[in-house]
Amino acid sequence: MKIDLNSDLGESFGAWRKGHDNEILGIVTSANIACGFHAGDPLEMRRTCRTCVANGVGIGAHPGFRDLAGFGRNEIFGLSEEELKSMINYQIGALRAIAKVEHGELRHVKMHGALANMASRDQVLADILVAAVLETDPELTIMTIAATCLQTAAENHGAKFVSEVFADRAYEDDGTLVPRSNPQAMIRDPQECADHVLKMVETGAITSVNGRRISITPETVCVHGDTKGAVAIAAAVRERLDGAGILVERF
Amino acid sequence: MKIDLNSDLGESFGAWRKGHDNEILGIVTSANIACGFHAGDPLEMRRTCRTCVANGVGIGAHPGFRDLAGFGRNEIFGLSEEELKSMINYQIGALRAIAKVEHGELRHVKMHGALANMASRDQVLADILVAAVLETDPELTIMTIAATCLQTAAENHGAKFVSEVFADRAYEDDGTLVPRSNPQAMIRDPQECADHVLKMVETGAITSVNGRRISITPETVCVHGDTKGAVAIAAAVRERLDGAGILVERF
Amino acid sequence: MKIDLNSDLGESFGAWRKGHDNEILGIVTSANIACGFHAGDPLEMRRTCRTCVANGVGIGAHPGFRDLAGFGRNEIFGLSEEELKSMINYQIGALRAIAKVEHGELRHVKMHGALANMASRDQVLADILVAAVLETDPELTIMTIAATCLQTAAENHGAKFVSEVFADRAYEDDGTLVPRSNPQAMIRDPQECADHVLKMVETGAITSVNGRRISITPETVCVHGDTKGAVAIAAAVRERLDGAGILVERF
Amino acid sequence: MKIDLNSDLGESFGAWRKGHDNEILGIVTSANIACGFHAGDPLEMRRTCRTCVANGVGIGAHPGFRDLAGFGRNEIFGLSEEELKSMINYQIGALRAIAKVEHGELRHVKMHGALANMASRDQVLADILVAAVLETDPELTIMTIAATCLQTAAENHGAKFVSEVFADRAYEDDGTLVPRSNPQAMIRDPQECADHVLKMVETGAITSVNGRRISITPETVCVHGDTKGAVAIAAAVRERLDGAGILVERF
Repeated sequence: MKIDLNSDLGESFGAWRKGHDNEILGIVTSANIACGFHAGDPLEMRRTCRTCVANGVGIGAHPGFRDLAGFGRNEIFGLSEEELKSMINYQIGALRAIAKVEHGELRHVKMHGALANMASRDQVLADILVAAVLETDPELTIMTIAATCLQTAAENHGAKFVSEVFADRAYEDDGTLVPRSNPQAMIRDPQECADHVLKMVETGAITSVNGRRISITPETVCVHGDTKGAVAIAAAVRERLDGAGILVERF
Repeated sequence: MKIDLNSDLGESFGAWRKGHDNEILGIVTSANIACGFHAGDPLEMRRTCRTCVANGVGIGAHPGFRDLAGFGRNEIFGLSEEELKSMINYQIGALRAIAKVEHGELRHVKMHGALANMASRDQVLADILVAAVLETDPELTIMTIAATCLQTAAENHGAKFVSEVFADRAYEDDGTLVPRSNPQAMIRDPQECADHVLKMVETGAITSVNGRRISITPETVCVHGDTKGAVAIAAAVRERLDGAGILVERF
Repeated sequence: MKIDLNSDLGESFGAWRKGHDNEILGIVTSANIACGFHAGDPLEMRRTCRTCVANGVGIGAHPGFRDLAGFGRNEIFGLSEEELKSMINYQIGALRAIAKVEHGELRHVKMHGALANMASRDQVLADILVAAVLETDPELTIMTIAATCLQTAAENHGAKFVSEVFADRAYEDDGTLVPRSNPQAMIRDPQECADHVLKMVETGAITSVNGRRISITPETVCVHGDTKGAVAIAAAVRERLDGAGILVERF
Repeated sequence: MKIDLNSDLGESFGAWRKGHDNEILGIVTSANIACGFHAGDPLEMRRTCRTCVANGVGIGAHPGFRDLAGFGRNEIFGLSEEELKSMINYQIGALRAIAKVEHGELRHVKMHGALANMASRDQVLADILVAAVLETDPELTIMTIAATCLQTAAENHGAKFVSEVFADRAYEDDGTLVPRSNPQAMIRDPQECADHVLKMVETGAITSVNGRRISITPETVCVHGDTKGAVAIAAAVRERLDGAGILVERF
């Protein structure tokens, strides 16, 4: 039994530092690296790739909307299909070149923030984004969440993809995330997160807030690293998986 | 006898149009495409690559400082070696991915504006930029101006390079450009430009404003396309070369 | 009988020129000046204010979303009430200071692009924007379109406002604009535009595409200046109004 | 005997937090607030003004180059006089409007980073910046460092200014700062900083690293707040001044 652990990294920008990347890069096996549109800058991307290579962590692009002021969290409507595709080509290409310079290899793509949220529920957008990844490089793996338009798009286009689950989020009976507005949405205790993840990995399924078993095989688990508490969760998850004899390695 | 004609293209940004790219792409054989830092955006880059491929024009990256408001013409001091290198890796990588999506191939790199000016006279900067291009891809050709630090850097690093001359600029006795502050700097008449270029190509040398012969073999001629007058110059240069039986083709 | 003519101006950015501002500023009586978020930059704002003062044209702020790449035409969701208000305070304040330096006075505010469109149909957003203008300066006049949430907000807050009509747009029976997707939406002939405007001003009402009379007193007429054709329309409208003895002056 | 304490604040941007503003705003008497070009955004400016008003801290604009990626620390050459002036008008105007909305009043201006450094040694630039502040509002006070071109410019233009000294920097015999490259440049111990400041305020002079007395009356003392250590220094300085019966209040 094996599982990948992923985290959104390289989210600093210029003089502004964000996240505990060095600690997280000692825990996870895949990094989703911001590409300069919502966060990250060329130097930050290069440093993050370097640390990934040093730690054997898989390198992935984490493209987002052009929205530094909003950290890619604002939903933006009005971009044409060709604008969306070019935006994805551009960000992936920039990171790929930087990874190569650091003797790394770009392996996957995970959409960021509002772009990911919109692509989870809008099939047209999801198909555009998956097509954009594939035209950039058909060998790239896309991280997708089960029961979303993005995963459907990946399936429809015959793209490589891995199913992502979250260490610190509770699930509804239909496999979607409990919305953040609901007090049950977040799991905050590191040991509870570790239990949650181990159960998903060992049973090959998600258990919803109502106890329902949903047969979605998790292939990668997302952990956060933007706060000290998030790092503690990531460490607890990793330790639990290691302790249970689960092979934690990149997909 | 053969020569390449190059032009700075893809310099529109969002709703702002700039240049006469479609006309110029029917004249030149190499395009230096802005990569989004001083001009250009992903969609503009994609459209420009598409037209290059359709017209058989060679695709090159035209990286500049991050300075949209100044169009990359402000000289910026204070960037570290690693920032400069990452900035070059990033822009080249972004364009390469977009070129590939349009079934084109990135062949060369030409520095833009203030970055080019600074690298012409600062050997340390020139070496950094050449190293950055080579680490991104050692097969890329760099466009350089003779008698500049950038050409020296290309030679020192064993980089592929082509020597660039200007259709509409007069030269000093030492092979450098007559500064724009001097009324003799610019050649404005299309036929005069055509004469100037033909002479450089046929004699394999530049003739200075004082009539001195400088033995610099031109490999590519830069023509501009930002005004109607510039397009007329480009067309006159191309026609003169074609008429004289010079093979105008990409290097 | 009198009427104001307004136009969106100062939409250049850095090296990118846009619009025929000098011609339009000889025709209109109010200018809506971009404030640097979707278009315009400090120097462009200053030059535009200077020409406004020289021509006796009223100066207004034309705030938009922070979206240079999209020219403020993308709809952006996710900004908090306080972010929206600060964004308006900031843009108005910047233009006011520049107007003052050029011995001009900021008199009005007109929302730009997607921000205006969203505020026309979203009452909550419209109320936020009107409140933001009033807290910046309660003496500012807001340009609003009849039968929109923005006009309702202006009324509810007791703000000064002027009702805007368009020289080149056809109207539905309910006073809203015929959508651009409908071939009847745009009036392209300058003389037809001039007839359309004169009729609205003389009758104190709009006539819809179906010939229905809608009693909306136009106080300002929007003319565009981004194309040669738009300038011709603006000139024809102005000439017709002058010829009919209508006083064309700023509100 | 009285003295002002100032600090550079409001330097967060979007999701990126920077500085310990809340702690520092309980210590200082004047705040230099970033205006969105090198740091800060409209919302951050508004929040910072609000806290200033709540704490009775004087509000000042801290304009910088348009350089978010470089935090305004890169030296930028090539801006015209009019571009520089507009850039200053714009930033001051934006902050003034936001201060007013929060019932505060803009009282002073302090140049940021590379702009300040360049204006300290370039008399032409210094004169342009002082003229730009005065044309925006002749009542504004400019914070300047003694023995710099900027202070000379303020004197020449008859501008109001206050002389600034640094809590954590050592001085040369000519009153200029010991360069950061020199190990003696920074004073890192909070109590030493407090001694340094108290001595400057009580003696009405600076003592150089060589023990030379330089008769420059300090009117405001700059303390930093970007690290925990900087906050400790600010607190120690304030405590020492209070303890010595020096009135710490805004100029």
